[in-house]
Amino acid sequence: MSKQMVLEKISQAVDILKEQNVDMWMTFVRETGNIKDPMMEMIVGTNATWESAFIITKDGSTEAIIGSLEVANMKTIGTYQNIRGYLKSVHDDLLQVLNKYKPQKIAVNYSQNSSLADGLTHGMYLQLMKYLKGTPYADRLISSENIVAALRGRKSPAELEIMKEAIKETLLIFDKVTEFLRPGVSEQEVAEYVKNITREKGFGFAWEEEYCPSVFTGPDTAGAHSGPTDRKVQRGHVINMDFGINYKGYCSDLQRTWYVLREGESKPPYEVMHGFNTIVKSIELAAEAIKPGKQAFEIDDVARSYIVKNGYNEYPHGLGHQVGRAAHDGGALLAPKWERYGNLPYMRLEEGQVFTIEPRLTIENYGIATIEEEVVITKDGCEFLSPPQKEIYLIK
Amino acid sequence: MSKQMVLEKISQAVDILKEQNVDMWMTFVRETGNIKDPMMEMIVGTNATWESAFIITKDGSTEAIIGSLEVANMKTIGTYQNIRGYLKSVHDDLLQVLNKYKPQKIAVNYSQNSSLADGLTHGMYLQLMKYLKGTPYADRLISSENIVAALRGRKSPAELEIMKEAIKETLLIFDKVTEFLRPGVSEQEVAEYVKNITREKGFGFAWEEEYCPSVFTGPDTAGAHSGPTDRKVQRGHVINMDFGINYKGYCSDLQRTWYVLREGESKPPYEVMHGFNTIVKSIELAAEAIKPGKQAFEIDDVARSYIVKNGYNEYPHGLGHQVGRAAHDGGALLAPKWERYGNLPYMRLEEGQVFTIEPRLTIENYGIATIEEEVVITKDGCEFLSPPQKEIYLIK
Repeated sequence: MSKQMVLEKISQAVDILKEQNVDMWMTFVRETGNIKDPMMEMIVGTNATWESAFIITKDGSTEAIIGSLEVANMKTIGTYQNIRGYLKSVHDDLLQVLNKYKPQKIAVNYSQNSSLADGLTHGMYLQLMKYLKGTPYADRLISSENIVAALRGRKSPAELEIMKEAIKETLLIFDKVTEFLRPGVSEQEVAEYVKNITREKGFGFAWEEEYCPSVFTGPDTAGAHSGPTDRKVQRGHVINMDFGINYKGYCSDLQRTWYVLREGESKPPYEVMHGFNTIVKSIELAAEAIKPGKQAFEIDDVARSYIVKNGYNEYPHGLGHQVGRAAHDGGALLAPKWERYGNLPYMRLEEGQVFTIEPRLTIENYGIATIEEEVVITKDGCEFLSPPQKEIYLIK
Repeated sequence: MSKQMVLEKISQAVDILKEQNVDMWMTFVRETGNIKDPMMEMIVGTNATWESAFIITKDGSTEAIIGSLEVANMKTIGTYQNIRGYLKSVHDDLLQVLNKYKPQKIAVNYSQNSSLADGLTHGMYLQLMKYLKGTPYADRLISSENIVAALRGRKSPAELEIMKEAIKETLLIFDKVTEFLRPGVSEQEVAEYVKNITREKGFGFAWEEEYCPSVFTGPDTAGAHSGPTDRKVQRGHVINMDFGINYKGYCSDLQRTWYVLREGESKPPYEVMHGFNTIVKSIELAAEAIKPGKQAFEIDDVARSYIVKNGYNEYPHGLGHQVGRAAHDGGALLAPKWERYGNLPYMRLEEGQVFTIEPRLTIENYGIATIEEEVVITKDGCEFLSPPQKEIYLIK
């Protein structure tokens, strides 16, 4: 992220600290080359080797306390106003900075709900508690999850522009796949084809390359979050692909569904059409239900119950997640109230959040029907960022 | 990492669990696309989206408890014997597996000392404690830092072979830099040149590209861990470069030093030679002192005190770190007993560990003298993996 974008996000963070009445937000890290707090890129803009604290205050001050060897780099990066380099231990400088601001509430990056607000490792938490022992600050730590959810969720117009471009580029690649698909090609061949185009165009991958894209053909596929196999496309298969790119630092995440006509068929059989159309309609209904202030699980429930009402099993995951610099971004999650999702389904929707909508159902003997669209929440509803797939793509 | 290499590391982990008398080692993660436990790659070999536990027992059993949508992928990856997919919460399966083995000691990845053994985030630690509440296991968690230190530190002959190749390829790139360096080229130009060669050869970078390589020319440079600037090479400059590649999953990490002769000079001035030779000698003395069983700080002290005795300030960092799949790898660290290094300087050296030796000193008015070599610890000493630089490279 450029210096300008980091400074914009820091400025947005200051507004959020005021709004949530939190005095200080501290990102406490070390050896980010080995394990990196997901917030570092957005609100710091560089790495840290030794124990380092990056502090943003409600008053708009920023303080970096870092290993002395990294002071010159931090000055070059230019995202923090005050920089302190230490030699032997972060302890003294950390306490000096805390005593300078005397915060009543200090948000740190731990969260049982959100991985993006959970960059503080347990060992580093214990280190921090060791340094704060005997000070009033030890009892003033709170989770940064609400700050992170707001900061990552509310997209600026500039961010939305980039995300729209990312979606457009991704759908061009889906179009190429429509030309490439034919009986006899394997899931792996489709994936290689997509990866090659992506690399040629200089894009990154939105998630781990081993299943970006995921490609599923026919009734016996492995299901979501699996890598492509040597299974071959056959006539009578429903095929789908889950794919996203990383474009100028922002991710796209989309799915499309195809059907390979059998000899003599001019359109898919009834079961395929019914399954596909159920997905299309469930997405429409979910999008109509989206509105700022609603709880995220309410939206999941609209699509889930429609699918079940139409005679299919419910999908074994949430309806949609936020997208941004990470493929799985933000706080609120369009998901049922299952324990594995923590409090994320209970969070309320806000204007400017970008969500996927990605229901799924199994069409017995044919394959999986699933479409994934991206929408942005507006003042009183939502808008599709991706032109939604309404017709199943046919392969002759 | 290939399935074969993960299985080898799991097998090595079982031996270490026996040796350290730990019943079970659990890696507990989620959303590894957002933040990834550094051990996942080595002992799991794939990613996880939902809360997942990867368990290795002293008896050699492996258990993966993962989101149901990732079961097919885990079977394809093939690194774990027993795989359980859950839908709504990891809770029940987790307790069933614990009750199956009834471990007295459960190592989990948190460590105040080592980032590589500290992949458990604080939020995930709290989740784990929530699941274990009311069971006998809540009190049986220990840090995995000694397991991780042994597993990452002890290199197999196959690993050493790859690391030797990585060093050889890296030094070929350093040779090209010797040809490229001339008065008037900037640090950034040198860095671009090195990055281009690295990409053309299909290698990765050993650490963050923004300072891989780091290039420092002349007396006014920024010091270690800074990106290259537009500062230009001039006659009378001491230049050095810190660079490593990622080769077949293993990192190299080396430094070399050059001097640009002034008009009329045929060799560097006395101050430059004295500084450079002090570095060379301090590396020789440190290498001679290395032996299994010694504490890591003892080695740092040999080089540090030699440099101070020769009239220079001590270097503001440790003498050397382990190298492996990460550029900063393993447990024991050749470093002074400063608080920022935790217990790592106190750990004892073991056969098979690969360390850098990288002292540094400032030559007033000329620049920084620093060399970084890599050595592997043998039964009764150490061997250089990199042919050590003994003469300063001259640019005419």
